[in-house]
Amino acid sequence: MTLEDVREQLRQKQAEAAIITRNNQFIGQDVRNDENLIGALTGFNGSDGLLIVTLDRALLFVDGRYELQAAQQTDPAEVEVIYQKNTSVFVAASGWLRQHQPSNTTILYNSWCLSAANLERFQRMMPEARFIADTRPIPTPTAHVFNLPLKYSGSDFPEKLAAVGNFLKQHQKSACFCAAADSVSWLLNLRSDALPESPVLRAMALITADGQFRLFGENLQLPADCPFRFLPFSAIESEIAAFASEAWLMEFNKTPAQILNIMSKHHIVPADMNDPCQQLKSVKNKTELTGFKQAHLHDGIAVCRFLCWLDHNRKPISEWQIVEKLRSFRRQQPLFYGDSFATIAGSGANAAVIHYQPTPEHNSLLTKNSVLLLDSGAQYFNGTTDITRTIAIGRPAKEIIRNYTIVLKAHIALASLTFPDNVAGTKMDAVCRSVMWRYRMDYAHGTGHGVGHFLNVHENPNNFSWYGSPQPLQAGNVTSIEPGYYKAGCYGIRIENLMYVTPIKNSDMMKFEFLTLVPLDKRLIDKYLLTGEERAWINRYHQTVYRKISPHLDNREKQWLQKACSPL
Amino acid sequence: MTLEDVREQLRQKQAEAAIITRNNQFIGQDVRNDENLIGALTGFNGSDGLLIVTLDRALLFVDGRYELQAAQQTDPAEVEVIYQKNTSVFVAASGWLRQHQPSNTTILYNSWCLSAANLERFQRMMPEARFIADTRPIPTPTAHVFNLPLKYSGSDFPEKLAAVGNFLKQHQKSACFCAAADSVSWLLNLRSDALPESPVLRAMALITADGQFRLFGENLQLPADCPFRFLPFSAIESEIAAFASEAWLMEFNKTPAQILNIMSKHHIVPADMNDPCQQLKSVKNKTELTGFKQAHLHDGIAVCRFLCWLDHNRKPISEWQIVEKLRSFRRQQPLFYGDSFATIAGSGANAAVIHYQPTPEHNSLLTKNSVLLLDSGAQYFNGTTDITRTIAIGRPAKEIIRNYTIVLKAHIALASLTFPDNVAGTKMDAVCRSVMWRYRMDYAHGTGHGVGHFLNVHENPNNFSWYGSPQPLQAGNVTSIEPGYYKAGCYGIRIENLMYVTPIKNSDMMKFEFLTLVPLDKRLIDKYLLTGEERAWINRYHQTVYRKISPHLDNREKQWLQKACSPL
Repeated sequence: MTLEDVREQLRQKQAEAAIITRNNQFIGQDVRNDENLIGALTGFNGSDGLLIVTLDRALLFVDGRYELQAAQQTDPAEVEVIYQKNTSVFVAASGWLRQHQPSNTTILYNSWCLSAANLERFQRMMPEARFIADTRPIPTPTAHVFNLPLKYSGSDFPEKLAAVGNFLKQHQKSACFCAAADSVSWLLNLRSDALPESPVLRAMALITADGQFRLFGENLQLPADCPFRFLPFSAIESEIAAFASEAWLMEFNKTPAQILNIMSKHHIVPADMNDPCQQLKSVKNKTELTGFKQAHLHDGIAVCRFLCWLDHNRKPISEWQIVEKLRSFRRQQPLFYGDSFATIAGSGANAAVIHYQPTPEHNSLLTKNSVLLLDSGAQYFNGTTDITRTIAIGRPAKEIIRNYTIVLKAHIALASLTFPDNVAGTKMDAVCRSVMWRYRMDYAHGTGHGVGHFLNVHENPNNFSWYGSPQPLQAGNVTSIEPGYYKAGCYGIRIENLMYVTPIKNSDMMKFEFLTLVPLDKRLIDKYLLTGEERAWINRYHQTVYRKISPHLDNREKQWLQKACSPL
Repeated sequence: MTLEDVREQLRQKQAEAAIITRNNQFIGQDVRNDENLIGALTGFNGSDGLLIVTLDRALLFVDGRYELQAAQQTDPAEVEVIYQKNTSVFVAASGWLRQHQPSNTTILYNSWCLSAANLERFQRMMPEARFIADTRPIPTPTAHVFNLPLKYSGSDFPEKLAAVGNFLKQHQKSACFCAAADSVSWLLNLRSDALPESPVLRAMALITADGQFRLFGENLQLPADCPFRFLPFSAIESEIAAFASEAWLMEFNKTPAQILNIMSKHHIVPADMNDPCQQLKSVKNKTELTGFKQAHLHDGIAVCRFLCWLDHNRKPISEWQIVEKLRSFRRQQPLFYGDSFATIAGSGANAAVIHYQPTPEHNSLLTKNSVLLLDSGAQYFNGTTDITRTIAIGRPAKEIIRNYTIVLKAHIALASLTFPDNVAGTKMDAVCRSVMWRYRMDYAHGTGHGVGHFLNVHENPNNFSWYGSPQPLQAGNVTSIEPGYYKAGCYGIRIENLMYVTPIKNSDMMKFEFLTLVPLDKRLIDKYLLTGEERAWINRYHQTVYRKISPHLDNREKQWLQKACSPL
């Protein structure tokens, strides 16, 4: 499909603009490369973005993470890249349409690929425009489905179904529609190989408070013992219609506009509320938390062994070799399933491209006397990891050391925070960021995100970002903390650890506990920029890393870790 | 009017619940005592709250500032006080209705007194309920109107009208309805004595992008040279209908539901966007900022003279005497108009009631060996002040000194912040609050609010609070910073200064500059809890206060100030 094909569609439908999203009917950002329509049309392969195509222009809206990358990957003669600070791409795009299109314009969209919330946003911004829906869902390729055993999930389907029912009753609702793939994966304790990294089962569910359910999914190869039956997407309308008299709940942000359109047709007015599965699964149970800790122990062993290997390596080495070598260490760990996302390994100036991903065809040798930004993670059957380390290569300049230390100060400010039990992550973002503001620095991405359990590495609702959910953090949430600093054309720094939220006894306060167990590169720390408390925090962390990881290393690795974890 | 009268209305209209707001058709929190229907029905006189009356219950929803006060002022046999952390009273009340009333219930509201935004909120929460509007505006008492001369306002009506027109054009709109009293006061450079403290002109305006306007107001005694003509509120419908084909903009949060209902009747679908006047007036012009600085110099002189008098006083003294004595010092200052709000002077345990206001009839003698929390302000023709000082009376306990110092650290964290030019105050709230979280402390009110220019002391849109506007701070905004700590039954602490936002040269960063010029009570500071930077910050502030205020004091006062401002 080309931009010219889209314009031909516009002419056929007598429309003036098309809204093209990056996702399919499962709305989230996890799609296969061959499903990424924005990628096919523009060349941009970032994990977020929105494309508006008019008869003579194509506008690609991206956030701060992709400002540089989108410009590099697209042809300026064909595609205009638009980046607006602190505004979601949907706000930016709907504002652009209002400003540049006639108010009674006709707009084409795929009602399976645009969320109900974003359709309503466009409609509010353009109340007089006509929106024409393409109602064809995106074909889903054949996927092999497998069970996640109870020893890893900690809760079986009947228990989860009952929890969803209770959630609905608490909110005076009697039915919900869950369109998010990770919701249904969690509910059924099923996973699949549909995507290269996120092991989600791509399916949707209709659930009632009294425990009835209908599942929708196509091209699923189910395990022999699977008790579930999946209906095709074409059956959704009749199944919803059969429950038309229920009190419906639906998370507009996570559901295709098509579902809302179906409900409207059957006079159902759903309340726009949080998907119960999203809420429930973000609070990890004891088994999941234990699994997360074990997965991070094994991941820590793999990453420490890799870092030791890298420090002893004397040959020129490429970013792509880094990616493969790191995976080779992880593959040796028990319960390893695969990478949790495409590894970001950026050396020197490449690291300033926040989500730079080397490929076998396009990658550089590591730059001497600079830093390597390495953001990677793995799926284990007992948990998901996501870690960024910025690593000295040779002798980095003083400026890099100063700025790494400031990013570390920002990381510690949030990681060491205690906070009341009613505060959303979005409210805490500035605790981290303001440390950098005092040095007139900032970063154009969120400060952190929730992480699924052997599921998507970006999980709702909890996150630290400008436009995050107002949902307070809860004990059992797993989140990243990952401030950074990027100097275009020069270098990039990011420090990311995963943490879980835990209550402080005898109080209504909570705190973070570490999951990630890999040392911070002391060669990049200027200890004179740190307060006594910050130094003590780093030393305590390194002590823990050494205590937990060293028993699993060989002698050379143990020596390396001892030095890496010695007190500042 | 009594709760029984409300219930009689419910029975007459066959309704099951009434929504009763504290405001009249000007929506904001500034009303006369005799207009405060919640006060008349329940006895609660706080500045915020929402009352739901059903046939057998009355529920008063308040925020954290009023949790204690509402319980004290109401009869628990008649009124249930409901306080939900970090939720606006409208969210809490609409949630309560959904949970406790049948979904197809009938609800009574006054469409002049409920904002369009809040009506829509209730409707969204109760999609099947029937809402019956009482469409009678609240009578406005006779008010004497006067001009604010150009030497204070810095911008005349034609210039402001043109600015509103440009704002509308920038947003592809051609007409707006401004219902907020402070909007129209700013636009016309008119003030009135309708309210005891806020000198707003209570009027509404319809403005078009090409400079047409219609003004609505009743019982206004205009100055002889006034060029403006005001129509009665009953004329609003026909005037709006005459402009039915315009592209309308309206701030739903600041406009009575009645206006939205009128527009709907005439097939107008207004965009819910910021009231242009609110936006424009929050950015103070040079004349206004110069005036603010002068007003704060004079206010600082008055408050310093008062504090010197208080420190030398040896007789038992009451909270009410404090209120009157402080006003007597302010009254001597040039351009003084009146108090900007009812002074909060709470001694000992009274200070823990966040918005405690002594009256001639009800007040206490100052408690020895505790603190006096004094939150006061004045209207000057050239600016508005708002300051809170917590003052040692005798020798306060170590615990109070420790906690005062922690509140001060929180104050400094935000006051000393530098920040990018695209950050909303609501995002910065945690910069202040998190300092207290680290000591497991918090406060149940916002961290700060915008301040009008010889207008309301609480001004939109900028503020530091959980549910504040997403509008970024702009150079020229004036805001308070006021963290606190309250121990019920024991004492209360708050430290409030007004600041203005100013750009940092050669950068896209901004910072705060002080307006308030009154020393912090060093007897309450434990300097060993402060960092070197915090100590330096306090010393610099005190130097500035001494340099600016001391030339205006007599010898005894100068000596007092010298001691109060000596380095830590």
